[in-house]
Amino acid sequence: MKKTTYPTAQDAETAFYEALEGRDLDAMMEVWAEDEEIVCVHPGGERLVGYEAVRAAWAQILGSGQRLKVHLTDLSVLTGMMVTVHSLHEHITVQGERRQAVPVVVTNAYLRTGNGWRMIIHHASPAPQVVEARRPADDGPKILH
Amino acid sequence: MKKTTYPTAQDAETAFYEALEGRDLDAMMEVWAEDEEIVCVHPGGERLVGYEAVRAAWAQILGSGQRLKVHLTDLSVLTGMMVTVHSLHEHITVQGERRQAVPVVVTNAYLRTGNGWRMIIHHASPAPQVVEARRPADDGPKILH
Repeated sequence: MKKTTYPTAQDAETAFYEALEGRDLDAMMEVWAEDEEIVCVHPGGERLVGYEAVRAAWAQILGSGQRLKVHLTDLSVLTGMMVTVHSLHEHITVQGERRQAVPVVVTNAYLRTGNGWRMIIHHASPAPQVVEARRPADDGPKILH
Repeated sequence: MKKTTYPTAQDAETAFYEALEGRDLDAMMEVWAEDEEIVCVHPGGERLVGYEAVRAAWAQILGSGQRLKVHLTDLSVLTGMMVTVHSLHEHITVQGERRQAVPVVVTNAYLRTGNGWRMIIHHASPAPQVVEARRPADDGPKILH
């Protein structure tokens, strides 16, 4: 049973990255919908389907002892009544390491449930380089719809 | 101006893969929403944003002379009133090559416009292996919600 209600998809996303940085498995899984069809793809990883598979992978990542700092950029939002999709870049650094953050391309999808918004898809894949193709008009708002 | 109306997101997805196999750039771009915020990530590629950037990349891929055959599996669907998200695997083979298809993990998002459903996000990334983590109960329908 979920304890937290996220009034918006953005609230769920904020909680997701706070749980990641805070290495808090319970808080992480609180964000996800309790659904056997949720999908999680870690960078370079296979597609994980279902609550238990997603939880097991996060338990491994969050329990690794690494302290991650995540900087988010380039958010585009597509908002629906029931389903909302975010496209963004994660820039992840490991505390204590001097390695530069490699950008990760992310698609996050959220579902409005009876108890607020929950994550149902997190698809992350490594980007090849920092430079992004510039849009013809790069001055508009970042809202898809 | 779009000529085709896709009554469902699935119709748009079918047209997307037909355009890919048929190397038809016009048909491919017909599927996409005419929006400066559409997002396309080819396997291992950077995030492309906006109609022109997305079109240019497809022009290169579809004009390469390679004849691709795409087999789709493991579709999960999350349907909303305005936004629908598909999670699936593509298995792409190049005609004339004996290489086995490497699975690609895909998240496709569709928007209901005044003129039917259009693609607004295509996020594809290589899967590391064919074997997928099995869900605890692998006998349910593949519908997310």
